[in-house]
Amino acid sequence: MNVAPTVPQVAPLAADCPLCREDGGLLVARHERFRVIRATGPDADDFPGFYRVVWNEHVAEWSDLSEVEQALCMRAVTLVERAVREHLQPTKVNLAALGNVVPHLHWHVVARYDWDSRFPAPLWAPASRPADATRLAVLRQRLPGCDAAIATAFTANPF
Amino acid sequence: MNVAPTVPQVAPLAADCPLCREDGGLLVARHERFRVIRATGPDADDFPGFYRVVWNEHVAEWSDLSEVEQALCMRAVTLVERAVREHLQPTKVNLAALGNVVPHLHWHVVARYDWDSRFPAPLWAPASRPADATRLAVLRQRLPGCDAAIATAFTANPF
Repeated sequence: MNVAPTVPQVAPLAADCPLCREDGGLLVARHERFRVIRATGPDADDFPGFYRVVWNEHVAEWSDLSEVEQALCMRAVTLVERAVREHLQPTKVNLAALGNVVPHLHWHVVARYDWDSRFPAPLWAPASRPADATRLAVLRQRLPGCDAAIATAFTANPF
Repeated sequence: MNVAPTVPQVAPLAADCPLCREDGGLLVARHERFRVIRATGPDADDFPGFYRVVWNEHVAEWSDLSEVEQALCMRAVTLVERAVREHLQPTKVNLAALGNVVPHLHWHVVARYDWDSRFPAPLWAPASRPADATRLAVLRQRLPGCDAAIATAFTANPF
């Protein structure tokens, strides 16, 4: 009797998609279907508490997922948001799945503060005040604790 | 025997919250827990295919909802997104729950086009080209059909 070899599940990749080639930031938690990264580079300059839940499979739109996949994805977004609220204590959390530049499903989960350079405007709006270097430095000190809480939450929760 | 009167479910309201006082746009579909509106006014000038799923109860953050409520809410977002994709055929759909100005949970579901005034930047970024009045006029003609499809979808689906 032939037994089919166990094939590890590999997400379909798209040529030239940066989120198919690499994690897309500092890896915080990895799941078979998605990963959580923290943004690094210019995106994080004014918004250090900037996480992304990246769906591993190359799909463009939210409604390309099944309801079961959507539930899994939003459970991940919720865990990240709860850790952000507890550890970074933002004025507001901003969630967005845009994908105009990189049409590979990813959710932005961003801690916003009433003192940040754009609040209450969206983070993509022009700055309305200078970045507050002192407060940003304090916020950056909390990031490892938030990262660790997210990693722990993903280990503890059934996914 | 005293029988408690039936009290209709009324969402908690917050003083001075515009989304507790009014629908927040052109009402497309109404559910006991949420409503779908189409943005009118300046928000829709450059982005006519701009819908919002507004949670009726005054909660600020996505993670304030239970998993059952989240599933209901995202089922609504998905129905709107599918109607937008079918009837308005955007280059990309943008989803966002920000709430910095009005911290009452609402999801933006916005049809984006590679010819729109900001694409591929987020719709809140500065314009990178003038609005295309001719294409916007064609798009606006399709809105009643999309509104009707959303209303029908909400009637047909179990919520």
